[in-house]
Amino acid sequence: MTIKTLHLTKGSSQPTFPDNEILRLYSMKYCPYAHRAHLVLDAKNIPYHTVFINLTEKPEWLSKVSALTKVPALELPGVKGDSLIESLIICDYIDEKYPQNSLNSKDPLEKARDRILVQKFETISPVFARFVFWKKEEDKGELLKKLYAGLKNFDDELNERNSKFFGGEKPGMTDYMIWPWFERFEVLNFMLEEKFKLDKDRFPKLSEWFDGMMNDEAVRRNFIDIDDHYRFVTTRDYDNAAENKL
Amino acid sequence: MTIKTLHLTKGSSQPTFPDNEILRLYSMKYCPYAHRAHLVLDAKNIPYHTVFINLTEKPEWLSKVSALTKVPALELPGVKGDSLIESLIICDYIDEKYPQNSLNSKDPLEKARDRILVQKFETISPVFARFVFWKKEEDKGELLKKLYAGLKNFDDELNERNSKFFGGEKPGMTDYMIWPWFERFEVLNFMLEEKFKLDKDRFPKLSEWFDGMMNDEAVRRNFIDIDDHYRFVTTRDYDNAAENKL
Repeated sequence: MTIKTLHLTKGSSQPTFPDNEILRLYSMKYCPYAHRAHLVLDAKNIPYHTVFINLTEKPEWLSKVSALTKVPALELPGVKGDSLIESLIICDYIDEKYPQNSLNSKDPLEKARDRILVQKFETISPVFARFVFWKKEEDKGELLKKLYAGLKNFDDELNERNSKFFGGEKPGMTDYMIWPWFERFEVLNFMLEEKFKLDKDRFPKLSEWFDGMMNDEAVRRNFIDIDDHYRFVTTRDYDNAAENKL
Repeated sequence: MTIKTLHLTKGSSQPTFPDNEILRLYSMKYCPYAHRAHLVLDAKNIPYHTVFINLTEKPEWLSKVSALTKVPALELPGVKGDSLIESLIICDYIDEKYPQNSLNSKDPLEKARDRILVQKFETISPVFARFVFWKKEEDKGELLKKLYAGLKNFDDELNERNSKFFGGEKPGMTDYMIWPWFERFEVLNFMLEEKFKLDKDRFPKLSEWFDGMMNDEAVRRNFIDIDDHYRFVTTRDYDNAAENKL
């Protein structure tokens, strides 16, 4: 039986675990980078404990398990030394260590191209963040144009690969590394006059891809509806105190 | 016979190659990121053509071989699609594709820890860049303190690993990924009142490591002396017009 905590905060006790074998993922429920690690662990059906962390008021003991107090952090029970950090490194580690449902291509060139694609996504995800932490001097229309231009490359890439997912007939590492932002994009609809839409006319391949991802078991297991994403973005209320639901 | 060009610039013709098998590395002689790719190719004894690019006045044809006009870019002759970009991705690709003198650990956990270490270096290399592109409002003494604090972690890490190199008894991927900045650090001595020094008292392990790296064949093949590094930093004169030496 795996454990999942509410978001632990300053003054909390460090959780203890009844076993010394199951991986421990220090995470934050709404963090897209931590989301990557959940997706990969679930896609490979690896059991793990989830310790959610309140990033606004971090527990004092966090530095004991994640030296730089970052999440995601993957603690390997029985292994000396710091937990693993950095979402991409954690996910590659999991994929190399556990052979089932391999997510990275075994071909060095395909793998390199996938990594370059994920790296290119790093020009899109900060645009999304700039909407969320919007400053008045920025033009939302211009930001939206940038977002669409970046996404167009991904639509073209899917078209060129001529496959349902970036990973082929099933989601691979690239699909899971970029998904967290797609799950969140519609948060923008609460913030914009011109609605954000991953529509079939503009992004025919990406919108099919989106539907395919929504049917993926690992995506479904970690899915958070857009109202709850928006609630968190605007309130920073980690555990929805009103409902106190996990 | 491999080809090495002077820095090609706006108006230049795209180079042609007498063969269609040898890798082509688009590079800039003084760029630390491109330096990484040279080190890895040479450490593995892989022949390659070097096309140096003037980054101030880029050749018009560059986008044909490197879509985003970035260097380093690795062109794979006979292979359709864009050249590979991003120094870390290029170097991992080379190491996976060519098995001789393996640089990354085969152990997923060791490999992940090495990647985290290289990622941590990304907090040190920008400090160096801030000296080079120094703005008057920044306090050089404070910057130097930051640099020393960052380097201390690497000294501690070598101590903990209790090995001559980060890769063990011979340089591995981590060693080559961080070396380009160590080769350049003494540029700071031209810019500071308090000299930068990788001295034995402050960094006992790193200074031994530095000496070991200076004896490495791949490092020696690509070594540029500190006067020339400083000359480039201050003049942006790519090919040392005064001497026109390669």
